Amino acid sequence: MTITAVDVLDVRFPTSSGLDGSDAMNPDPDYSAAYVVLHADDGHEGHGFTFTIGRGNDICCAAIETLSEHVIGTDVTDPYDLGELYRALTHDSQIRWLGPEKGVMHLAAAGLINAAWDLVARRAGLPLWKYLSGLDPDQIVDSVDWRYLTDALTPGEALDILRAAEDGKAERVAEIEQRGYPAYTTSPGWLGYDDEKVVRLARQAVADGYTQIKLKVGADLEDDRRRFAAARAAVGPGVRIAVDANQRWDVNQAVAWVSALSEFDPWWIEEPTSPDDILGHAEIRRRLAPIKVATGEHVHNRVMFKQLLQAGSIDFLQLDAARVAGVNENLAILLLAKKFGVPVCPHAGGVGLCELVCHLSMFDYTSVSGTMDDRVIEYVDHLHEHFTAPAVIKNGRYAAPTAPGFSAEMKRESLLQFAYPHGPEWRNRA
Amino acid sequence: MTITAVDVLDVRFPTSSGLDGSDAMNPDPDYSAAYVVLHADDGHEGHGFTFTIGRGNDICCAAIETLSEHVIGTDVTDPYDLGELYRALTHDSQIRWLGPEKGVMHLAAAGLINAAWDLVARRAGLPLWKYLSGLDPDQIVDSVDWRYLTDALTPGEALDILRAAEDGKAERVAEIEQRGYPAYTTSPGWLGYDDEKVVRLARQAVADGYTQIKLKVGADLEDDRRRFAAARAAVGPGVRIAVDANQRWDVNQAVAWVSALSEFDPWWIEEPTSPDDILGHAEIRRRLAPIKVATGEHVHNRVMFKQLLQAGSIDFLQLDAARVAGVNENLAILLLAKKFGVPVCPHAGGVGLCELVCHLSMFDYTSVSGTMDDRVIEYVDHLHEHFTAPAVIKNGRYAAPTAPGFSAEMKRESLLQFAYPHGPEWRNRA
Repeated sequence: MTITAVDVLDVRFPTSSGLDGSDAMNPDPDYSAAYVVLHADDGHEGHGFTFTIGRGNDICCAAIETLSEHVIGTDVTDPYDLGELYRALTHDSQIRWLGPEKGVMHLAAAGLINAAWDLVARRAGLPLWKYLSGLDPDQIVDSVDWRYLTDALTPGEALDILRAAEDGKAERVAEIEQRGYPAYTTSPGWLGYDDEKVVRLARQAVADGYTQIKLKVGADLEDDRRRFAAARAAVGPGVRIAVDANQRWDVNQAVAWVSALSEFDPWWIEEPTSPDDILGHAEIRRRLAPIKVATGEHVHNRVMFKQLLQAGSIDFLQLDAARVAGVNENLAILLLAKKFGVPVCPHAGGVGLCELVCHLSMFDYTSVSGTMDDRVIEYVDHLHEHFTAPAVIKNGRYAAPTAPGFSAEMKRESLLQFAYPHGPEWRNRA
Repeated sequence: MTITAVDVLDVRFPTSSGLDGSDAMNPDPDYSAAYVVLHADDGHEGHGFTFTIGRGNDICCAAIETLSEHVIGTDVTDPYDLGELYRALTHDSQIRWLGPEKGVMHLAAAGLINAAWDLVARRAGLPLWKYLSGLDPDQIVDSVDWRYLTDALTPGEALDILRAAEDGKAERVAEIEQRGYPAYTTSPGWLGYDDEKVVRLARQAVADGYTQIKLKVGADLEDDRRRFAAARAAVGPGVRIAVDANQRWDVNQAVAWVSALSEFDPWWIEEPTSPDDILGHAEIRRRLAPIKVATGEHVHNRVMFKQLLQAGSIDFLQLDAARVAGVNENLAILLLAKKFGVPVCPHAGGVGLCELVCHLSMFDYTSVSGTMDDRVIEYVDHLHEHFTAPAVIKNGRYAAPTAPGFSAEMKRESLLQFAYPHGPEWRNRA
């Protein structure tokens, strides 16, 4: 199966108008996708995207166009081919200078690589999580780029992890199909919401079956204390409330601020400081214990996750399906997390991330970690209506996707309506 | 002085045809610039660029176009304005998602910010190094973005460093003007050169007054041993020979490979592994001591440099004038290096980096570190003919630039000749 053409579309949703998605560092996001369709010579399509929050989405589209020269004409029959494609996209000798393995070019690679996995899973007639669960351990290991990882995890150790998880895998696949995977919700906690809305949505979340919610913090301490107190009173002591500062603080400030929230029993503090600050996170975690530390949505590659684990910087690893370079790099990160015994609780929300990331957590359960203890996938109730196979939540859990592929496909009418800048939605606003 | 227009040009030099610049990870670079001209309402111009090695240069140009909306209409009368411009370019709430502060968008910010400093120094009628040396410590501190740094260095500590260096500054400025700043040369050591060329150029370097040269390594150990032995025999034991692996190795491989070269007395090992691998560099340094470890040309921002210093990962900090977001972020890094007592030996070469970076080292001497001990600026004898005020080397030292500005301006005929893809040089090749 050879890729014959790549379509790239700039799609943006005007979410900034409702303050959905507002936080201390991102006050006005317009959730967007640099959207990719791969066309194969056997008639199959592969869909993928780079998620952004508005301006610069066109630059990601341009980057995808540039990388497409490594995609067109490529054979993507099996996972080994996807490993080769990964290496071609992330190690182009000239483009590598623009990273390496970070920023716009890495985001663009993610969109293309995820689209290629979508294509391969569709062709196999399986949802991606189940397709991955059916691969041999060797195939998983071969799809990973081991460069820069072997001081923490060797391919041989990864193979041992995957082989050990063969035991009981069929039962875990069946369990995922029956019961899905636990979720938590960020919908109540956006910084732009007033207290009444926070309380109402927090109560609704508990009524809907969630056992964990998340609040955005970091703009104003007194506001945070008031909102957190109201949310805690609304849901009671038995519900976990995580807080998320979206990188707002320096190290000492993070410790002071979260300490001032500790009476409300935060479950984790997410992104307390720069996502690049491995040592800063380690210091914050040490000083805030037993409050837990989480990060990952802006962590740009496997080398950074390796160090967050080596340095003992995090209690929860928040993998992002489309920030690192797609499925291959996420497989590496799942294996690293297993080695270090750190639960993966993926970042989602935005547009389409919920759809993608549940596949990775479900594979983690069936084939890597073998446990759902203390694992939850973020869920945000935005923009799912634009997808052909949207994420489905039942009683606070993600239902197992059943449609073949990676659930990345947007409806054609949405792609047209929200095309930027010339689709009707944007033309009418201009 | 307000910026009224921004020109962006894609300029590429076909250096891959001669294997100049070839190394273990970059076998075929076409040294390129996403070149920027700022036009001010008083008739002054500011020139700057993002350095790349070919493919993707157009994406940096697009990123500069996008960021230009923060530049046009901006007042850039004094250094405080340049601090504001820095924050506007690196903290756009939507664009920040594409990094933060790394990759294409950060490179683009570097080009614009450096052009703005060029503009301000030209208007003052001073070469940038001398303009910076004449600023008040407060002005330097105000131009730095302190976010994420204060656990390692506070603005107050930085002010103390700068104030302490006021003493003797006039003498150091005079010394720079008379004697320049020490250089080392990478010209003999490109991986694509045969042994005879390495030996010939190494001898020439010593004859030209250099006391340090650098060899590229990392593709084949036996080749490296043979080339290193030949170069050492050619220059004798008194000349420092650094080696540079350009990120080729994992941690354990780096230790083994460099150990196998140790009999030839390497001065430092540069970029032994991923530039993101702070802990990996620390481990390599610990195990290879007393061989020194250097990195920086791909280190993407001040948060990463902070950690390389905190973790004791490096003996030499190789600041790049245009990888981090321009002068402002480099000032932060010079101050961090001073605090931790690590010599700064800037990365140069490519196209235009020699021209830029000597200004920063000269300022470091006059106003921050106050010493040139164990400090050398890289020099590569390529492409200087395209600049209106090219770097000048005399007896192994950079001469102090005298032309007003940041020495970033390329000749108009070069910009036209090497415009990509439609300039005569590229049209003739197509």
